[in-house]
Amino acid sequence: MTARSHDRPGPDPDRAETEAVLRKQHLHASVADPVLDTMTFLNEITTRYPDAISFAPGRPYDGFFDIEEIFKHIRRYLEYLEDGGASPADIRDALFQYGPTAGRIRDVIADSLRLDEGIDVSPESIVVTVGCQEAMLLAVRALIARPEDVLMVSSPCYVGITGAASVLGVEVAAVEEGADGFRCADLRAAVLAERAKGRNPRAFYVVPDHSNPSGTTMPLDTRRELLDVAADLDILILEDSPYRLVSPGRQLPTLKSLDRRRRVVHLGSFSKTLFPGARVGFAVADQVVVDDAGHSSLLADELTKIKSMVTVNTSPLSQAVVAGMLLSANGRATDLNAKTSVYYGEAMRATLQRLEASLPAARRAELGVSWNEPEGGFFLTVNVPFRADTEALARSAGDFGVIWTPMSYFHPHGGGTRGIRLSTSYLTPDDIAEGITRFARFIEAEAGAADAPGKN
Amino acid sequence: MTARSHDRPGPDPDRAETEAVLRKQHLHASVADPVLDTMTFLNEITTRYPDAISFAPGRPYDGFFDIEEIFKHIRRYLEYLEDGGASPADIRDALFQYGPTAGRIRDVIADSLRLDEGIDVSPESIVVTVGCQEAMLLAVRALIARPEDVLMVSSPCYVGITGAASVLGVEVAAVEEGADGFRCADLRAAVLAERAKGRNPRAFYVVPDHSNPSGTTMPLDTRRELLDVAADLDILILEDSPYRLVSPGRQLPTLKSLDRRRRVVHLGSFSKTLFPGARVGFAVADQVVVDDAGHSSLLADELTKIKSMVTVNTSPLSQAVVAGMLLSANGRATDLNAKTSVYYGEAMRATLQRLEASLPAARRAELGVSWNEPEGGFFLTVNVPFRADTEALARSAGDFGVIWTPMSYFHPHGGGTRGIRLSTSYLTPDDIAEGITRFARFIEAEAGAADAPGKN
Repeated sequence: MTARSHDRPGPDPDRAETEAVLRKQHLHASVADPVLDTMTFLNEITTRYPDAISFAPGRPYDGFFDIEEIFKHIRRYLEYLEDGGASPADIRDALFQYGPTAGRIRDVIADSLRLDEGIDVSPESIVVTVGCQEAMLLAVRALIARPEDVLMVSSPCYVGITGAASVLGVEVAAVEEGADGFRCADLRAAVLAERAKGRNPRAFYVVPDHSNPSGTTMPLDTRRELLDVAADLDILILEDSPYRLVSPGRQLPTLKSLDRRRRVVHLGSFSKTLFPGARVGFAVADQVVVDDAGHSSLLADELTKIKSMVTVNTSPLSQAVVAGMLLSANGRATDLNAKTSVYYGEAMRATLQRLEASLPAARRAELGVSWNEPEGGFFLTVNVPFRADTEALARSAGDFGVIWTPMSYFHPHGGGTRGIRLSTSYLTPDDIAEGITRFARFIEAEAGAADAPGKN
Repeated sequence: MTARSHDRPGPDPDRAETEAVLRKQHLHASVADPVLDTMTFLNEITTRYPDAISFAPGRPYDGFFDIEEIFKHIRRYLEYLEDGGASPADIRDALFQYGPTAGRIRDVIADSLRLDEGIDVSPESIVVTVGCQEAMLLAVRALIARPEDVLMVSSPCYVGITGAASVLGVEVAAVEEGADGFRCADLRAAVLAERAKGRNPRAFYVVPDHSNPSGTTMPLDTRRELLDVAADLDILILEDSPYRLVSPGRQLPTLKSLDRRRRVVHLGSFSKTLFPGARVGFAVADQVVVDDAGHSSLLADELTKIKSMVTVNTSPLSQAVVAGMLLSANGRATDLNAKTSVYYGEAMRATLQRLEASLPAARRAELGVSWNEPEGGFFLTVNVPFRADTEALARSAGDFGVIWTPMSYFHPHGGGTRGIRLSTSYLTPDDIAEGITRFARFIEAEAGAADAPGKN
């Protein structure tokens, strides 16, 4: 990796002969993931067209957030420790020191899961993580262990899970979604196909509610069927569901709350319900693990061991804020999100209404355009009759002033080339109205152009 | 992984037939690392003998820590943003939202590195991480990429680096330390031996100052020689040095401050200098990376991509506290540690004096016992004439009321069976005096027993 005289010159002509210059192809393959290029491209285009309205980022709305509350929440958690008998030295320790690797606030999270999600597990089944991303990494690392092991994912799927797999060099097999989300028959067929190839599917990753990216929600019957299929195929389900409690109205039960056979590892996030800057998530992993000597542990214990080699701890300071917030609402994150759920629900409804107004049924049928109508979450899918690729995105941003995410970005093995993800979470009502008007103009122009023979 | 009737019964007899039961041998090998068993054993023995004095944990002393300061530090950072022109919305965003994956406080860290460590790099060369552990994981993942790649470590070595390698399935080759730390000739020989086996050493991990576990410090000449050797062998150095600024007196220059050929990736931690509960560390990776198309980036950019798949962000809240603390001392973490350095220095000196008083030179020569005399850091090594294994540790705790860490725990490929690590950072002067008295009694008993023929 040395820059010798016969090598490509580096950017600095004064560099010493033996200065380290690394070749990207010698770095780990995960740094060359095409998803990262799409992200870079999205950032670039957002910077290049600062006046464009962006439906790309899935960021939570922060208008209701008050910085002073952070201090109150930390103090509330410390009072809670004090009420539980902690000495001043214990309290200092709770914020200052490393703390237990599995987390300090597992009791508070367990209470909240019982109240908010109907998930009734012991604190010992929970591992507190640095956001849901670390929970994904730990679960994938623990379970997809041997060369033949494979992770099944619903596709299109959240890039966090394929990213975690990529860092770990783990194989991913995709189960394509239909309009209502994935079908259990497709999962079964995909698992059997993998087995026929000598591979060993261990777990299936899915976002059952208001999915990122597609916005689909799994019906109750499918949830029950999925649990049966998982037991029958002897696989686990990795359930990730960050948008439930920030969606308006009553939600379907989580897979974990329906799980009577410990088939579900629930991956949790407080980034949407509390705030992303806390970087606190968790895994619920109450599965029993037995070793050859007959000793048993919980999968949570094994995830904790891996966590000790990834981040050691989740910041106790962040955990204190999260616990304080949950305690302030007597454990109900739903109560904390009453206002935000309404806000997000209105943003989604406004987006759909504006789409309907700009591209009425007759017109969109002519153009071959359609979209789904999520009742919650941050995202919806628009199906278009042209290639929704980075070139189309560049035209959309440059000529029409509107930015979105190509759905192909979320397909681990190709596909989604005619899909667009719109995120509605971060925009003001005015931006949504203007942005969708621009988006409809872009669609008209592209779909019209797509009518011309020889295009696409 | 289903518990079928012919399988071992699980702990719950009412468990459904298809309840998931995982076999530990089917989980990733990293969860079966013997190091984890040693840690579990240490925790168990600490719980079983609550009155034993423990020289095991390398925890920072928290007696000088004041919780109210946390709030002041966060406010100070927010004022700093305000002074820099941030609007109220920007400030809310800075704490509430995800923020840039590479970190928000790279400028503050870069200033501090220049003032405290003589490391002069651009903020763009820095990635803020969830403690130094994540920095290790990112560096190992980026660099040890192909099946033939191997990570070289100074041995005995910090278990964090071998843990990161274990999670990633990365091969580790050890370079044994002498009494003054490792020798460059040994590193060269080890690298050449790996190459002869068809393997490709990419980087060498070392703690140059007051090393964990052994307490050795690399002399200045060796530092310069190591940089030459790295350039000559075309490898990188992963420098981890968390104990410098909490050690009394003047420190030798960091490898990174001596590095003129971008051979050193510096892995940083604020756990000792500020507080562990922040969980903020960083990597300095100013190496140039070129791809096949001739585009160049910094290694920090590539580490950032991997971080996006591990933790997405380091908590902006934690970053705010860290930045506020550094700003409170005008960037000088050394100033923040004036009192703690003295405290740790006195603890180390008191330990060494007590050892000397309890086991004077003549007596320890008879017994075949010796130790090194670190001038800083948290650790020292005691060499003993008996197997310092978990059985010896159980006797030490149960019969003598003193706990320590077996040095074998830190040897990735065996060795260190007659070494003991004593950590002096967390104990009070009284505990050190009493603890070392007990430790000397234990040594007398074991070393005396070792004299008997047929033992060991």
